[in-house]
Formats: sequence, structure tokens, C-alpha cells
Amino acid sequence: MLYRQEEAQKIDDELFTEYAFSVDQLMELAGYSCAVAIAKCYPPEKLTPSNGAVLVCCGPGNNGGDGLVCARHLKLFGYNPSLFYPKKPNKPLFDNLTKQCLGMELPFLSEFPGDPETLQASYGLVVDALFGFSFTPPVRPAFAGVLDILRRVRVPVCSVDVPSGWHVEDGDPEGLQPDLLISLTAPKKCAKHFKGRYHYLGGRFVPRILEQKYDLQLPPYPGTECVVQLKAPDSEG
Amino acid sequence: MLYRQEEAQKIDDELFTEYAFSVDQLMELAGYSCAVAIAKCYPPEKLTPSNGAVLVCCGPGNNGGDGLVCARHLKLFGYNPSLFYPKKPNKPLFDNLTKQCLGMELPFLSEFPGDPETLQASYGLVVDALFGFSFTPPVRPAFAGVLDILRRVRVPVCSVDVPSGWHVEDGDPEGLQPDLLISLTAPKKCAKHFKGRYHYLGGRFVPRILEQKYDLQLPPYPGTECVVQLKAPDSEG
Repeated sequence: MLYRQEEAQKIDDELFTEYAFSVDQLMELAGYSCAVAIAKCYPPEKLTPSNGAVLVCCGPGNNGGDGLVCARHLKLFGYNPSLFYPKKPNKPLFDNLTKQCLGMELPFLSEFPGDPETLQASYGLVVDALFGFSFTPPVRPAFAGVLDILRRVRVPVCSVDVPSGWHVEDGDPEGLQPDLLISLTAPKKCAKHFKGRYHYLGGRFVPRILEQKYDLQLPPYPGTECVVQLKAPDSEG
Repeated sequence: MLYRQEEAQKIDDELFTEYAFSVDQLMELAGYSCAVAIAKCYPPEKLTPSNGAVLVCCGPGNNGGDGLVCARHLKLFGYNPSLFYPKKPNKPLFDNLTKQCLGMELPFLSEFPGDPETLQASYGLVVDALFGFSFTPPVRPAFAGVLDILRRVRVPVCSVDVPSGWHVEDGDPEGLQPDLLISLTAPKKCAKHFKGRYHYLGGRFVPRILEQKYDLQLPPYPGTECVVQLKAPDSEG
């Protein structure tokens, strides 16, 4: 079951109002599940360059917050994440997420690598946490250049919830084509246009009553796993 | 490396001040790791009674909050947790944690089972989230009866961070003897008196700099796991 932008917004609202979750809580679980999905697809010891360097690109909203949490957990899993976070909102939540990353010795880049070759020489993987389910095109100029480079880079791009720049329902055939998509809470309609190798669902926190209300038909998560695989490379089945 | 009550308090303070974590975030990770450790030791399908019923006992402080989070994740893992939470503080954090559990259809008991036999006829497992690392004996009267029953019950008791009623450094040879202890952040000194079968460490969020400052010498967590086993039953080695 794939859901629309308006439904995604409603479900998000209900989690915070009816169910009294805090953004901190759900962002922590969401970002953690992104890091776990990434580690399943691209174990740190298999990355090139071999120092496990990963570039995490964070946008101005909650998707960017998920990226900051993801980066912190990737560090604990043995990666070396660097952050690009050019438009931090002036809110305590994002100030704190930034401080947490700094406290874990994650560098924040002031400049984005100028071309795909420079990027892929330094990083074995890119996390795209620019825009999420509340995005509506077009991409604003501050991020257009970044997205253009991410479209052309040859290292895997992992998109958090929605490939950035995509219409949340219709996708973008000319846009970014990530290798891994981690849908959060439930997959959005654009996921049917996803052409990459790996698709995971994360954010295991949806109450049964909410799932039924929106007929989400979520796949069962195995055991205590925080992610469930929705698509594997063709060779794996 | 086992640490003292005063150090535990300092490390906790630094996580919230220097590193800017919120209680919501770390409690979510801590409670989640407790649920994962419990699921590893006592898979839901092996519990008696077979409906996966678990009694989660929550105290008035942050240890109780860990218990509420743990209960919510246990529900997602296929258990049927019930909560006993007689002294909820009047603070938004605990109000919200309670609402989240109610939204996930977890019942709150108004009365504690009156004797060990009644308890073990209804629940296959007890989670002890009454008191944590800031506890100093003696136990106040409201909880003395509960602890007395937990000491005598024959189903496994799983203690969150510190077996309730124990002195955080010296333990309590006459006190509660849990079957599973889940130390959070780092094991406290009392852990050397633990006689149960399973000891796990959870709360994988300690920055390297903080670990070094307090010489915590944490064991490495395997892969993306949120817990690491410190003690297995003798038969497992």
C-alpha cells in the first residue's frame, strides 16, 4: 500500500498529537533505521575508499534531521561520516542534533564537493537527506547544484524516505536515481518509480490502530529488526 | 570497567549538557535496547502462558520511563505487555510516554498481583524498571510490597540498569535476584554481584570522547546491534 503526500502528513500529525510521540523520539528511531539499512547494503569494510567515508547531505527540514541522526549511528557502526548541512533551521531540535554530531567528532563541510569526480574520490557512499515527504518541486537554488552532482555521481546514493527532488507521488524520471531507498513509516506513492537495487522500510513505531485507520498494510518486521527489506537486487531473488 | 553512582550521574549529566542529547532520545534508545535483550533471551513464542504476557513494573523516575519505552517495543515484537505504574510523575515526558503506551493498546493495572502465584499464572516474564542508578536504599513503602513479590516469583525477572532495591555499588545479597540484567550506558559497580543467567549492555550512544574521559572501556557492539552480551548461561560458555 503506497500512500499520498496528504495522508503522509496526516499520519505524521496523528503520531505527534493523538499518540503523543515527540519529534526527538521518532526521528531517533527513523534515523537509526536508516543507518541499519545502509549497513546491511554497504558494510563499512566493503566501501571504497577503505576508511568508510560517507557524505551525509541534510536539508532544512525533518528529513535533514533524520540524516543527522543517521550519521551519528553510522559513526557508531564504524563509518566515517561527514555532513553537509547548509541551511540549518534556527530551532533547538536542530541545534541539538548538530551538537550531538560535533560531540561525536563528525565534521561539517562548509563547501560541497564541486563535481562528481571529487566527491567519489573522497566518499564511498552518499546519504541523501535533503527533502522528505513534505517537499513540493521545484528545488530551491541553494540545493539545485548539490542535486545535480548527486544525479551524476557513481557511488551509491541512499535516499531517506523520498529521493530528493522527486514529486512525492509522481517521482521524477529525469531526477536523482538512488541505489537504496529507505521509506519511513510507510512507503509513499513515488516508491513505485524507484529503480535502484535496495528498498527498505524503517521507522518501526506505527501503532496498530493507526495502521488500520489508514489501511497501511505494512509488511511484518522480522524479529526485533528495525527495518524490513521490500526489494532486493534481482540476483538475490 | 564498573562505575560508581557518582560517575553514572556525571556521565548522564554530560550526555544532556555537553552533548545536547534529549531525555526522549536516549530513553528511546535505552528502552529499545532493553526490549531487544529481552527478546534475545526469552523469545515470545517460548513464554508460558503462550499469549506472550509480560508484566512491566515502572518506578517514579527515568528508570520507569525506560520501562514504558521497553513495553512499547515489546508490543511491536509480539509480546503482550501490561504495565504497573503506580507513581507517575506529573511531567509532560511521562504523560506522553503513558499516552504512547495507551495508544498501542497496553493496559495499565491499577492493582499489583497480590502474591507470586497469581503473578506467575498470568505473566511469563516480569520487567523490573522500578529504580535505576540514582536510587539509594531504603525502598519506600509504596514499592516494598511489589519488590517482595518480585523476589519470590518463579518467572524470570529482567532488571533495567540496576536490580531494584540494590545499592548501586554494593548490591543486595538478600534482595531481588533477576535472571537478566540490562546495564545501560555502562555497567554499574553492583553488576559484579549479579548472579542471574544473562547480562547485556545496551544504550549504544556513548561518544568516544566521553568513553575515554571516564575510562569506561565499553565492549565493542557487534555490527548494527543495539546490545552486547556480557554474560551468557554457563552452558553457552
